[in-house]
Amino acid sequence: MAKYEILVTYRTGIFDPAGETARRGLEQIGFTGVDKVSIGKFIQLDADATPDEVQVMCEKLLANPVIEDFAIKSVG
Amino acid sequence: MAKYEILVTYRTGIFDPAGETARRGLEQIGFTGVDKVSIGKFIQLDADATPDEVQVMCEKLLANPVIEDFAIKSVG
Repeated sequence: MAKYEILVTYRTGIFDPAGETARRGLEQIGFTGVDKVSIGKFIQLDADATPDEVQVMCEKLLANPVIEDFAIKSVG
Repeated sequence: MAKYEILVTYRTGIFDPAGETARRGLEQIGFTGVDKVSIGKFIQLDADATPDEVQVMCEKLLANPVIEDFAIKSVG
């Protein structure tokens, strides 16, 4: 069983509504020095799968390649 | 302006509905070797803030300490 960690982030120029909402929330509770918050996904996968298969899983289901980038790391 | 990366994950024993839904979806498209999918958050923060302040941001707003763990990394 292999372990993978996948970071999914919005592509450059794509609006991140959750991140902007978090930034405003932080401002409202006093953290006025926050310039930007980006909220992506951190996916941990336990699978009998090769890195190439995990790449396909990301392209087909775990990420949306139209608006998101992803980076796959093999961790065991 | 400092940069931080924060990984937010469900605490042990907390059910992860999005992860389980992704696992079933992968199974349905043919990836039957996936044992577990956990979906957490990957937060990138640009802020004039110390690591201690970022810790408080996580405790108060960016994570839910009742059900989530978080790890803060200073990246610049």
